Amino acid sequence: MIRPLLPRCARALRATSTAAARRPSHALPALPALPALPALPILSASASHAARRMYSIQPEAASTAKPVDVDPSKLVIHKTTNPKSLVDPSTLIFGRNFTEWTQTEGWRTPTIQPYQNLSLDPATCVFHYGFECFEGMKAYKDKAGNVRLFRPDKNMERFNKSAARIALPTFSPSALIDLITRFATLEERFIPDQRGYSLYLRPTMIGTQKTLGVGPPGSALLFVIASPVGPYYPTGFKAIALEATDYAVRAWPGGVGDKKLGANYAPCVLPQLEAASRGFQQNLWLFGPEQYVTEKELITHPLDGTILEGVTRDSILSLARERLAPEGWRISERKITMAALAEASAEGRLMEIFGAGTAAIVSPVRTISWKGKPVDCGLKEHEESGEIALRMKGWIEAIQYGDEEHDWSHVC
Amino acid sequence: MIRPLLPRCARALRATSTAAARRPSHALPALPALPALPALPILSASASHAARRMYSIQPEAASTAKPVDVDPSKLVIHKTTNPKSLVDPSTLIFGRNFTEWTQTEGWRTPTIQPYQNLSLDPATCVFHYGFECFEGMKAYKDKAGNVRLFRPDKNMERFNKSAARIALPTFSPSALIDLITRFATLEERFIPDQRGYSLYLRPTMIGTQKTLGVGPPGSALLFVIASPVGPYYPTGFKAIALEATDYAVRAWPGGVGDKKLGANYAPCVLPQLEAASRGFQQNLWLFGPEQYVTEKELITHPLDGTILEGVTRDSILSLARERLAPEGWRISERKITMAALAEASAEGRLMEIFGAGTAAIVSPVRTISWKGKPVDCGLKEHEESGEIALRMKGWIEAIQYGDEEHDWSHVC
Repeated sequence: MIRPLLPRCARALRATSTAAARRPSHALPALPALPALPALPILSASASHAARRMYSIQPEAASTAKPVDVDPSKLVIHKTTNPKSLVDPSTLIFGRNFTEWTQTEGWRTPTIQPYQNLSLDPATCVFHYGFECFEGMKAYKDKAGNVRLFRPDKNMERFNKSAARIALPTFSPSALIDLITRFATLEERFIPDQRGYSLYLRPTMIGTQKTLGVGPPGSALLFVIASPVGPYYPTGFKAIALEATDYAVRAWPGGVGDKKLGANYAPCVLPQLEAASRGFQQNLWLFGPEQYVTEKELITHPLDGTILEGVTRDSILSLARERLAPEGWRISERKITMAALAEASAEGRLMEIFGAGTAAIVSPVRTISWKGKPVDCGLKEHEESGEIALRMKGWIEAIQYGDEEHDWSHVC
Repeated sequence: MIRPLLPRCARALRATSTAAARRPSHALPALPALPALPALPILSASASHAARRMYSIQPEAASTAKPVDVDPSKLVIHKTTNPKSLVDPSTLIFGRNFTEWTQTEGWRTPTIQPYQNLSLDPATCVFHYGFECFEGMKAYKDKAGNVRLFRPDKNMERFNKSAARIALPTFSPSALIDLITRFATLEERFIPDQRGYSLYLRPTMIGTQKTLGVGPPGSALLFVIASPVGPYYPTGFKAIALEATDYAVRAWPGGVGDKKLGANYAPCVLPQLEAASRGFQQNLWLFGPEQYVTEKELITHPLDGTILEGVTRDSILSLARERLAPEGWRISERKITMAALAEASAEGRLMEIFGAGTAAIVSPVRTISWKGKPVDCGLKEHEESGEIALRMKGWIEAIQYGDEEHDWSHVC
């Protein structure tokens, strides 16, 4: 219920090899209805007081002809006449309290307007055939009061890839960054300036053609909704327990597991509930007879089409190559099997495992249940995080909040 | 744009083995925007004149507690005050012209009311995570004027399986059949009594919880929309050309390819457009290094989790066992590779291939493009259908329209 984007995982093996991986966001679910998960830092929702707006773009025809691209110069802003009061940042929760934009007249006239329902014909293709994709990103406020986005170009690039894969229209990345920048700036009073707080942004595109035939949607809606969010771990890290999942398969070669499509999420909820019923907060998705670990490595499973092209994953790998490699670390993108991981654990070579993602940046893992037996992930009993996860979080936050000037941070 | 449900394919090998298979509906797309497909019987949409209603059920909480089941005795009917005029059956098109029901107050109070838009918060989980599943079925009118459904119990069984797989609530199959019966009876004037015409019904369930967290939806909406439809092949069969697809993979063991989820459809549109760009009307989905044919066999690929549990597929297999087996046919559900199929074709053992599904019942195939080369599917130049496809269509229509009394036909 609470976490729009979820940690991707990484791990480090002692000796000379390091490992860092990401896990798809849907596999770190909110599990709102599962009281049996005390170790999972679920933040409960409270009443929303933020001004609600959304941003949208509705092309007349998608995929059949190249639509007119997004033109930020034509932006229309309809401000709410009933603005919401600010929320005490200490009460912020992750994922609710929307602040949004919307627009209804094609790529040509983007608008920012008060949050409101979408009114759609029940035959609209988004309800029947899964024509939907999204992104997750955040706006941060630095000490000088500037609003900053973190690597928005990466999100826009992936958003376009996801849209194109399901025959939805693409758009100019710079134009949408421009619009999101104006949206975030307009709503800057909802971005708390404390470390750990931010404005979560959810760009979403849906097919809106009214038809029960299966084909490329002739129309689409692009909207951005937003929500002020607090720290993923308000009281510090809390390492989680995973269950290695081989009875269900999330993604496969030639499939769409590397795209941020709605289609990849709903099918993961049932395995998530099964893992939860046995006391595990998350699934670790295995794949194939080799049971390759496709997630949770700093080596990280390569981008072979079965995992998402995570922005945080990419950032961690880049920082590791820049800052850990000189210390003697080896940064690898290679497959690793669950058996090899268990062996490393048994031999005491497994230092730490952590997830990575926009929501938590990093999420340490204490144990993985594999074939019914726990695989210890290297944390000491009193520890909730390993050293690499902690350092990564510090490095990335310093960039996100502008304490360190870096070209990944886009000043609005 | 036009075909809610699409043919599944079947084929027959000469000698002693027969083959019958189904193909998932999304792989027989409407391709509305592709003028280069003269062989595809695309029926264009016209203005709708049918009364529009929809039926829906909205539980307060799904998956967390067993919801009160559908209670047809509480049905509320809100008739439109502005009924549509009837359409000349000869002008009917497949897939538009909705006649629907809707309801907004939980499983407890199903309603039939005029067709109208759904108003949903942009953070509703159906827009982000693919919480959606559906069914396709038809109501027929027999010579005595009775309204008939074809094997609705099979559709309800599959609908519940699909819903449960993505953590949506299930319902009493008999209660929903009861409600659909009342809906179809109420709208019986929109069901033409000619052979080939019917009322297409689209039961749909979507997750409606407002949350960006990924978890089991706490609320859902079940609605049924309908549309009068004409014959899939108004001027008789027109055999189609397929392209064997191995660069994209539709389904995987352990995945959800056997469920009727929105998630399975959008990812198939791009490969469909690619095949269309080379002049093929449909994709034949291959799977794995063996390139097993997972579709279009009367043997039919077995129900191993990668293909949909097709109602027409099941009906064809049953009729084949009952009526073809005594004639010396062998009815098999087994895997067959594309190579074996090409070999049978080269050796003149391939008699015919046809798809099967609710929309067309059967859909004959003339050729399959495999590795860039055509595999002839056994039809003579002047033929648009093989003998088995023709006989199957006749047998099934006789049951659907009540010419032959059969327990598959549910009299409303």
